[in-house]
Amino acid sequence: MRDWSRDGTARDERVAAGRVLARGKAVHRDDAAKLLEALLKPGDRVCLEGDNQKQADLLAEALTRVDPAVVHDLHMVQSGVVLPEHLDVFESGIAKRLDYSYSGPQAARVARMLFGGKIELGAVHTYLELFARYFIDLTPHVALIAAVSADRDGNLYTGPNTEDTPTVVEATTFKNGVVVAQVNEIVDRVPRVDIPGDRVHFVVEAGRPFYVEPLFTRDPGAVTETQILTAMLAIKGIYAPYAVKRLNHGIGFNTAAIELLLPTYADRLGLKGEICTHWALNPHPTLIPAIESGWVEQIHSFGSEVGMDDYIRARPDVYFTGADGSLRSNRAFCQTAGLYACDMFIGSTLQIDLAGHSSTVTTSRVAGFGGAPNMGSDPRGRRHPSAPWLKAGREADPDAPAPLRRGRKLVVQIGETFGDGNVPLFVEKLDALNLAEKLDLELAPVMVYADDTTHIVTEEGVANLLLCRSPAEREQAIRGVAGYTEIGRGRDRAMVERLRARKVIQRPEDLGVDPLDADRSLLAARSVKDLVHWSGGLYAPPAKFRNW
Amino acid sequence: MRDWSRDGTARDERVAAGRVLARGKAVHRDDAAKLLEALLKPGDRVCLEGDNQKQADLLAEALTRVDPAVVHDLHMVQSGVVLPEHLDVFESGIAKRLDYSYSGPQAARVARMLFGGKIELGAVHTYLELFARYFIDLTPHVALIAAVSADRDGNLYTGPNTEDTPTVVEATTFKNGVVVAQVNEIVDRVPRVDIPGDRVHFVVEAGRPFYVEPLFTRDPGAVTETQILTAMLAIKGIYAPYAVKRLNHGIGFNTAAIELLLPTYADRLGLKGEICTHWALNPHPTLIPAIESGWVEQIHSFGSEVGMDDYIRARPDVYFTGADGSLRSNRAFCQTAGLYACDMFIGSTLQIDLAGHSSTVTTSRVAGFGGAPNMGSDPRGRRHPSAPWLKAGREADPDAPAPLRRGRKLVVQIGETFGDGNVPLFVEKLDALNLAEKLDLELAPVMVYADDTTHIVTEEGVANLLLCRSPAEREQAIRGVAGYTEIGRGRDRAMVERLRARKVIQRPEDLGVDPLDADRSLLAARSVKDLVHWSGGLYAPPAKFRNW
Repeated sequence: MRDWSRDGTARDERVAAGRVLARGKAVHRDDAAKLLEALLKPGDRVCLEGDNQKQADLLAEALTRVDPAVVHDLHMVQSGVVLPEHLDVFESGIAKRLDYSYSGPQAARVARMLFGGKIELGAVHTYLELFARYFIDLTPHVALIAAVSADRDGNLYTGPNTEDTPTVVEATTFKNGVVVAQVNEIVDRVPRVDIPGDRVHFVVEAGRPFYVEPLFTRDPGAVTETQILTAMLAIKGIYAPYAVKRLNHGIGFNTAAIELLLPTYADRLGLKGEICTHWALNPHPTLIPAIESGWVEQIHSFGSEVGMDDYIRARPDVYFTGADGSLRSNRAFCQTAGLYACDMFIGSTLQIDLAGHSSTVTTSRVAGFGGAPNMGSDPRGRRHPSAPWLKAGREADPDAPAPLRRGRKLVVQIGETFGDGNVPLFVEKLDALNLAEKLDLELAPVMVYADDTTHIVTEEGVANLLLCRSPAEREQAIRGVAGYTEIGRGRDRAMVERLRARKVIQRPEDLGVDPLDADRSLLAARSVKDLVHWSGGLYAPPAKFRNW
Repeated sequence: MRDWSRDGTARDERVAAGRVLARGKAVHRDDAAKLLEALLKPGDRVCLEGDNQKQADLLAEALTRVDPAVVHDLHMVQSGVVLPEHLDVFESGIAKRLDYSYSGPQAARVARMLFGGKIELGAVHTYLELFARYFIDLTPHVALIAAVSADRDGNLYTGPNTEDTPTVVEATTFKNGVVVAQVNEIVDRVPRVDIPGDRVHFVVEAGRPFYVEPLFTRDPGAVTETQILTAMLAIKGIYAPYAVKRLNHGIGFNTAAIELLLPTYADRLGLKGEICTHWALNPHPTLIPAIESGWVEQIHSFGSEVGMDDYIRARPDVYFTGADGSLRSNRAFCQTAGLYACDMFIGSTLQIDLAGHSSTVTTSRVAGFGGAPNMGSDPRGRRHPSAPWLKAGREADPDAPAPLRRGRKLVVQIGETFGDGNVPLFVEKLDALNLAEKLDLELAPVMVYADDTTHIVTEEGVANLLLCRSPAEREQAIRGVAGYTEIGRGRDRAMVERLRARKVIQRPEDLGVDPLDADRSLLAARSVKDLVHWSGGLYAPPAKFRNW
């Protein structure tokens, strides 16, 4: 006779062991490591909350202090490998296996530890994909999460950085798991219930805010004229003809430049109300001028952004906010929105090969994926039409019978032909392939695959890959906008001119864009201080962005 | 100077108008229509909760009774058009525009009303796609939802049928919307908080349970020997060689037969533990014998199923359940899991054409999509490898460089060559195309597209479309399993034999399956009563399934 509640019994035993250290649900921060020793069993799947923004940093530090003789070989299933502590636990043997999504700041150390066999790699995911596995085969036994405040019943208030928390908690608590929350403070009444208390087993008062990285802030002062030019080409060559209203912007100066050109350049083109009205986007400070100029209908966000809280609170018609007035972000829903409800994803990358595959990996850095592959993929399950989507579908397959022809999501890669430190954007072979060989990975870490990429924008022009009819045309379309890089110099000039005649490649002059007009005076804001002015003093940039 | 909280002010005005009829948050059911008249404005986007299972039926009925002079031209954005009331509001002019996902029981009337111009159609979506749009461009102004109970603060308990509720509420309440919940009863303390009270504005006590349709119950007594044969072929021809552990089953007798063969036929093949361990699936009664035989590790569910509550409560190691012991379902997360964390989707359909497109539409019935197109599509944003996924990828594109070759989700269509009423499964032209012409739709309502379909299973054999190298081969592979239908008789026998030699087509004998063995004695349960026995009396089938 099988016992059908073994997991439930085990959960009850874990909770009972933890209760010894608790007053109600509250455990003192000095006992955090002891609590984890009481709750965790060797081999447990553990989600230590942390993504590209918020971090359960107190619990991360506590996990490094448990006794490896008691707690070892954990299987970490978490969005972000961002803090040193996230990797320290692998050095000490507390953790063994890793399934994750993003590791920006730790990319080099992750690579070293993978080479050194210090980490048993499950897979690198996109956020939504990892969340999906939380409900199927990577369900956490224990979740260590972060919130702003808790009441005595364990009701949690996440504030603007709700992010992954509801998803992590749902997968864990409803599958016999244990949820431990670090909170900045314990209060009598939370301003808003982001997580109901009956899903939370323990609360640790940190006495200080959890760490948040201002990852989506770009200083307009650092936007170059080449980036302004690529922004002009993108607006005139893609945003306008496809009339893209629902979209997501990746991180970077190229897309920041586009945001800063909406109230100026795009406005003069008469595009207000015609493009960029509905967004799946974090609260980018560089979008403030466009919002203030009435360009933006609404924005749903994955997470929040440091310094934007007061501004968001004063713009409830634009952002999703709670009764308390602050942002309610949600990474799972925003990624879903980016996948299925947006007509365009545009972002920058490190390397693009001759087929159009792109990657942000170098042989010494394993940065992970984050959300780009999800947003930057064509959702084959989509069934609702929209003008941009149908136009892209027609261009890709003009001869197919219309009612059986799906549209295509616009997936745009934008960048300068030579990036930071004059490193060429275009390469014969992605470093991701060398990395896959070195690490013996079954898949190379490709950020956006060639068959999903529809356009490439550089200062030399816009390549529309939807209009290419053969791999050879595709390669020449890419070489045709690769400038003076080796890839660009290797172009077949005759074929490139033929492609240009077919508008597969469009030069600035073909689009009526004069590179000499690409001037910083086109930027709606030229500095972080300008952004503060645009916001009516509501945007409070982090210290490192205050140069006045 | 723009007012940035117009929506918030409008929300506050709506709520104030409703409060006149309320005691705290509670409004008497006799005042439900008055409440809706107070809250709704012409042209509002309204989500009237209802999917293929649960229905906010009291609020649906109340909406039909509002004064069309006061409330008209509503834009309904909801998962299901299932109750007569869902269409009555269009007859009376209360509603005008419709964006939805599923309309099974109302398919014929929806078609008539579309032809008659009674409904202005936005689009037909998959569930997850519609949820995505709730956060971008179809955000509801008012959500009318259903729960089991509420406390005085408006905290809601959904019981096992959580389904769409958390998603609908999140999109609405955090974007200045108003949330009205019908509940079976108001209690002092809810058993579990599925929706925090601060997201709910009004509660109407129905005094009776909301309607739930037992859509996923199939009587083993009605499983035919042909369906048993197709199940044997699927298990031996697909489940076994690909070693599919993570999967979703569509609705229907063919997949029910597979579920009933796991503890018998599949067990004798030594497949226990090798296949079907992790599921994105509603609580199908026909899976009970496999669960009881220890085949199933865990199941995450879109919704619940009538009569399964006690069984689920007694099997918490298998299902996702709350502290109250009952199921916690979640359509958005389960659809995400089906998209990104499952290696196979298998389902039945009404029509398959020569390319492999399939549809459940007939010219007189617009049934909608539900979740199948999402589950039955290849998720291009997926980045984690798995054995079945990689094998399918290799078969589809053997010459591509491995590290740049993505895997493929297995998308299987299963059925008898002649379906109900001897209607052929295979057709030259989908009725969906005629419908698209008649209604002048931009897209034909295709359930699963040819380029996503990897296998077709009929009693004549298994066609592996991944191994086809040309449209001609594809067509013959399909004709080759189309039996005595016109499509089947039109096959090129020589090419079909060549495809068979390459294992593109596999006959029962090629798979070592003797059609004479396809006997009802292979079914682990041969009746609903058997299922009750298997469940130890915990499964309580609805009256219409009790024939003893």
